[in-house]
Amino acid sequence: MNNHHTFRLEVRKKVNFYHMIITKEALLNYDKRYRTHLVNSLNGYKSANLLGTVDQQGQTNLAIFSSVIHMGSNPPLLGHITRPDSVSRHTLENIRETGFYTINHIHTGIIEQAHQTSARYDKNVSEFKAVGLTEAYIDQFFAPFVGEAYIKIGMEVREIIPIQTNDTLLVVGEIQMISLPQSVLLEDGKLDLEQAHTVAISGLDAYHQTDQIKRLSYAKVDKKLELL
Amino acid sequence: MNNHHTFRLEVRKKVNFYHMIITKEALLNYDKRYRTHLVNSLNGYKSANLLGTVDQQGQTNLAIFSSVIHMGSNPPLLGHITRPDSVSRHTLENIRETGFYTINHIHTGIIEQAHQTSARYDKNVSEFKAVGLTEAYIDQFFAPFVGEAYIKIGMEVREIIPIQTNDTLLVVGEIQMISLPQSVLLEDGKLDLEQAHTVAISGLDAYHQTDQIKRLSYAKVDKKLELL
Repeated sequence: MNNHHTFRLEVRKKVNFYHMIITKEALLNYDKRYRTHLVNSLNGYKSANLLGTVDQQGQTNLAIFSSVIHMGSNPPLLGHITRPDSVSRHTLENIRETGFYTINHIHTGIIEQAHQTSARYDKNVSEFKAVGLTEAYIDQFFAPFVGEAYIKIGMEVREIIPIQTNDTLLVVGEIQMISLPQSVLLEDGKLDLEQAHTVAISGLDAYHQTDQIKRLSYAKVDKKLELL
Repeated sequence: MNNHHTFRLEVRKKVNFYHMIITKEALLNYDKRYRTHLVNSLNGYKSANLLGTVDQQGQTNLAIFSSVIHMGSNPPLLGHITRPDSVSRHTLENIRETGFYTINHIHTGIIEQAHQTSARYDKNVSEFKAVGLTEAYIDQFFAPFVGEAYIKIGMEVREIIPIQTNDTLLVVGEIQMISLPQSVLLEDGKLDLEQAHTVAISGLDAYHQTDQIKRLSYAKVDKKLELL
């Protein structure tokens, strides 16, 4: 906790606190666990998903990911970041081997089970069984879904892109099917994620429920600033 | 809204609703706006950040991104997805030209201003001025921060990776400095994003505040299932 200096920040509203600067040098000098907690908090809230896969021998795997992002709507693509050597390597191996995987929203009712999939289980252990979630197969889709999940997405891999800077990979997949409660699909196509009890993650290990503050209309250049 | 079929889903808890399957064909047949809303909802909650840049002529730019993700903690990296041709292209141009940018958490007090940066302003208009947010410079860092943001991150670009599948780009940057309220930095390095009023995004246009449900300890293989 060296190399900090603090100063008074002028802020409007309620928040009124001392501000600090963390330099790159300070960040690199923190112990690994402290730095990992901090850097994992820095992008803000993260999506909370379980990725389900199965290998050619029928061994299933389930792993938690907080890096699933929207990549584009036509074609409909989602991406996620993975390390070749981490606890999530079985997911990557199965995606490479079979081409298919599922993305399942973590909801308030399955947080503990979802978190527990991050333990380093052997390849011959199915996290579905180990944590007590149900392998579900829908419409002959190759990879297993999480039966308990409300929002389930069947994916086919399109691209696995190496990131040189830190030897991670971006896996890009195309949406093949979606299974979801009819009532969470709103009139304009948006999903009501709160009705589906979908949670968000912050840092490495915190789970959050949300409340919608507002939806805003499509932003136009000529919008009057008074309206802000 | 064709090609749906519904069936009764067995669920535990409170949620009890008709389930539907959306096939890939149905998804591709939706009109563009409906599909965009739906696919943008599918990864779950998204981070909410403003990216600040300035070109060599001193023209500043500010743009909202919901795709900022954690890429790794050592080196400390954040990434985001961008299109070469979208409203966010000025951000990309400035990052290419100067190498630097800032990431600023959107909080409950600046949602409208942040959303308004997504309007298609000309290159010679600074979104800072247009939406009423303050350009702030800290410790000679090259790119402008959002003065009103509580959590501000100075970034230097490391890699810009083309994604073939849909002609987007993954921009990978290394954290150079962090400015944040001292009180939001917890003992173990995690940030208390709720104290910082950081918001999450769902779909294209919905903003959410959160409540932490729980933090869970590091998952180990031998954890007793009863504890779940």
